[in-house]
Amino acid sequence: MSVTGQQLISGQWQPGQGGRYRAINPAEGAAIEPELTYADEAQIQAALVSAEAAAPVYAATSPEQRARFLDACADEVMALGDTLSERVMQETGYPKGRAEGERGRTCGQLKMFARHIRAGDYLDARIDSALPDREPMPRPDIRFCKQPIGPVVVFGSSNFPLAFSAAGGDTASALAAGCPVIVKSHNSHPGSGELVAQAVARAVRQCDMPAGVFQFLSGAGNDIGATLVSASEVKAVGFTGSYRGGMALHRLANERPEPIPFFAEMGSINPVVLLPEALQQRADTIAEGFVGSLSLGTGQFCVNPGLVAAVADAGLEAFSAAAARGVEALPAGVMLNEGVAKAYQAGVDRLAAQAGVSRVAAGEPVGNQSGFRGQAALFQADAKVFLSNEVLQEEIFGPSSLIVRCADEAELQQVVGALQGQLSGTLQATEADLQARTGLISLLQARVGRLVVNGFPTGVEVCDAMMHGGPFPAASDSRFTSVGTAAIDRFLRPGCYQNMPEALLPPALRSDNPWQLRRLVEGEWTQAAL
Amino acid sequence: MSVTGQQLISGQWQPGQGGRYRAINPAEGAAIEPELTYADEAQIQAALVSAEAAAPVYAATSPEQRARFLDACADEVMALGDTLSERVMQETGYPKGRAEGERGRTCGQLKMFARHIRAGDYLDARIDSALPDREPMPRPDIRFCKQPIGPVVVFGSSNFPLAFSAAGGDTASALAAGCPVIVKSHNSHPGSGELVAQAVARAVRQCDMPAGVFQFLSGAGNDIGATLVSASEVKAVGFTGSYRGGMALHRLANERPEPIPFFAEMGSINPVVLLPEALQQRADTIAEGFVGSLSLGTGQFCVNPGLVAAVADAGLEAFSAAAARGVEALPAGVMLNEGVAKAYQAGVDRLAAQAGVSRVAAGEPVGNQSGFRGQAALFQADAKVFLSNEVLQEEIFGPSSLIVRCADEAELQQVVGALQGQLSGTLQATEADLQARTGLISLLQARVGRLVVNGFPTGVEVCDAMMHGGPFPAASDSRFTSVGTAAIDRFLRPGCYQNMPEALLPPALRSDNPWQLRRLVEGEWTQAAL
Repeated sequence: MSVTGQQLISGQWQPGQGGRYRAINPAEGAAIEPELTYADEAQIQAALVSAEAAAPVYAATSPEQRARFLDACADEVMALGDTLSERVMQETGYPKGRAEGERGRTCGQLKMFARHIRAGDYLDARIDSALPDREPMPRPDIRFCKQPIGPVVVFGSSNFPLAFSAAGGDTASALAAGCPVIVKSHNSHPGSGELVAQAVARAVRQCDMPAGVFQFLSGAGNDIGATLVSASEVKAVGFTGSYRGGMALHRLANERPEPIPFFAEMGSINPVVLLPEALQQRADTIAEGFVGSLSLGTGQFCVNPGLVAAVADAGLEAFSAAAARGVEALPAGVMLNEGVAKAYQAGVDRLAAQAGVSRVAAGEPVGNQSGFRGQAALFQADAKVFLSNEVLQEEIFGPSSLIVRCADEAELQQVVGALQGQLSGTLQATEADLQARTGLISLLQARVGRLVVNGFPTGVEVCDAMMHGGPFPAASDSRFTSVGTAAIDRFLRPGCYQNMPEALLPPALRSDNPWQLRRLVEGEWTQAAL
Repeated sequence: MSVTGQQLISGQWQPGQGGRYRAINPAEGAAIEPELTYADEAQIQAALVSAEAAAPVYAATSPEQRARFLDACADEVMALGDTLSERVMQETGYPKGRAEGERGRTCGQLKMFARHIRAGDYLDARIDSALPDREPMPRPDIRFCKQPIGPVVVFGSSNFPLAFSAAGGDTASALAAGCPVIVKSHNSHPGSGELVAQAVARAVRQCDMPAGVFQFLSGAGNDIGATLVSASEVKAVGFTGSYRGGMALHRLANERPEPIPFFAEMGSINPVVLLPEALQQRADTIAEGFVGSLSLGTGQFCVNPGLVAAVADAGLEAFSAAAARGVEALPAGVMLNEGVAKAYQAGVDRLAAQAGVSRVAAGEPVGNQSGFRGQAALFQADAKVFLSNEVLQEEIFGPSSLIVRCADEAELQQVVGALQGQLSGTLQATEADLQARTGLISLLQARVGRLVVNGFPTGVEVCDAMMHGGPFPAASDSRFTSVGTAAIDRFLRPGCYQNMPEALLPPALRSDNPWQLRRLVEGEWTQAAL
């Protein structure tokens, strides 16, 4: 249970042949021991071959077998104990509470998908029995259920070393679906990823799963990602990261000889709309909640509230003043790595340089503090400026937000109507505020995956009802989510069977219903045998 | 109720400003009256604007309102009576039985989607209630349901003037989902399409739907398709047609600034695997069924059996001889249009020219018969030839098929393993044949959308359990179907609501469950109120 810097290929840990590096502690800007390795091209190809070989074997496992495997993954991750949380803290600068909370979330996700596939609804089993006497033509027996799409490549995110990485939500949902997974480790927290991969590898052996069911690779630069997404063995991709990275891989996935489903969650600016009565009643409380959401994890959440919009009245003045005081009190938090810190500073500088944008407040300066840090920032602009300059809609990954001041309600509608697709949209409002603005609410809802009322966007529940995705560019395909049980749908395809003999049907579709699934039989839901 | 050659834009029929043409009767090769028109760029743009305006209005209709609208569409199409079936026969060369059968199927599909959205399961409603006392953080109330993705463009197919055209399965599923539809009419049967569009337009008025909910455009060449797929107002596309056409539009859909879901069903060669005991017992019967499937609609089905594979034994000899006799007896059937007939002949010539491919039989020659016709053809090749030449896997749209003769079972496995993605795969087999070959069956199943046992691939049931799609290149995305109730999923995206006040929730998610939906509440399915 220590970091070795190796690659997991076909069940074997082996040093990568593609170069050496060390992880960096972003709080100190210093390298962390031990030396790590990158996979070379031959190792990547070996992993692809192994994943392809594992696919039919793993697809043939029962949901119960895979559920036990997912439970074992969760247990093994928990068994990493402080070794894991300490490495996470070293590699990310996150406090212990965050590291342990995210570990809990990650294991909770694995167990949630275990429960989900045991329940079996994900199979979407449907049976339309033969009607031999139907005129003018008899109807054959037709049975339908979902099956795994094949090997999946998962790109871990920078900001969730556990919950969106080696055994995060993409991996958990793909494994639950019956798809082998190749994880492209994120170089911001490679040791954390490796420890988790070691835990999963133990679960693979315990549960007698094929060696290629889970593999873990590291690589410098973008070549490894391009190789994996372009490989004929790969049948789908889950990605969490930047718009630029997501779109580059999206293009590759669609330009292959065989295009494959590519799901990228690419973040957004998560607008928070403040309505007048709420502002009048509780501007200070809203500002406090807003600053808390903005600064959580040094603002490094894809659901960070990067935009506030409201009609410019006394309530908004009170909010802005209180939010400014809050932002000024924020320490210069540790950012995930040098690249994130530099990109954040560049984003803030770019926004500050736009005509009509003014800085309302700034947090503690970075100064000579150790490591990679970000100074919180709050800007404002008039709606006319926002509406005429697309730069103001660009995500700045970190603790920066922009208040858009609208002359009146009509302009507020225009601002909401001009928004690109978002992971979330938030309304701070009284009941009366909402009742009077159903048009505005519909406009916002049409642009977001999740609509939040009187909360803040950070804090994404992991549950059946979660939608974490949204209209482009929040996600590459608005029909899917990367969080919650519906995330499994990304990695399933339907297959149907016409007049298949009972003995050869998959268990989900046998007449005696051995798994006691809820099935749509002749148009009615039933758990009964045929 | 007569063909006028006009475009339907925002509820108004108007002559197209982009040129004039006439439909062609393929049985005679002669133009059909009256003169028709093409839309020009301004008219296309007007339709896009109207669809976008209709989207929120139509999205706000209830499933019951849309179900009535779909039922009205079906009633209006039926009310076209002989006017429609006669125009279909003129434009396609199909016999009356086919025209009327397809009309029945089309109206059946519309009514099926009406029932489907009334039942409401497509909404996939999920509720995870607030847990205010949860530690370490309270859980908010989270509610999830599906909603329409926005305006959809539908490309009608050449071979189904009704069931995959103006009010075919793509249109029916998009309208059921709550999405406005712009139909790009197929120039092979524009009058049939217009008559159906007139019927839908009457249903739009009867049901007080927004004018832009259904529009019907014609255009020469590919420009209109490119314009529609590239338009920012369009949020998804349904396409049925050729690989070349599908992939060209797929690229456009993914290269837009905002990529959109694009579903193309692009046909396949639908392999039929003959197993030895079945061949030994009933080679003649299998051959008879095969020739019937091959020649149905002059072979112009995307599920036409274009490939037969078997171990070369006495049974296969008997099958080949019987199939050859059957093919020789086939008349030179009418093909859909000159382009289809030319492409068919070119495909047959190309296959015949491949090394190692020999012609087993040919149907009646086209000779000097009127119109556009195709001569049926049956070829054979050894497995080694098939495995070394990808040309042998190319679809030939029309009544041509290739028998692949395998030296042994291992070679048969290789042939199946080398297949690209298919809409369907068929096994002709006894129980004993199947029991002995679970590996081969899995190999075939992994490559197809629908596995048929002891039937033939033509005849696609429209039901809950149908999967009409498959691994690439049968379809552009193996996760979706274009036939059956699951087709609606292409045009829905999830949205979720966090702590939304009751009064503002969509009815599907209200605590009192006014639509009596089956909902997943705290992980359990229930129709009860909260």
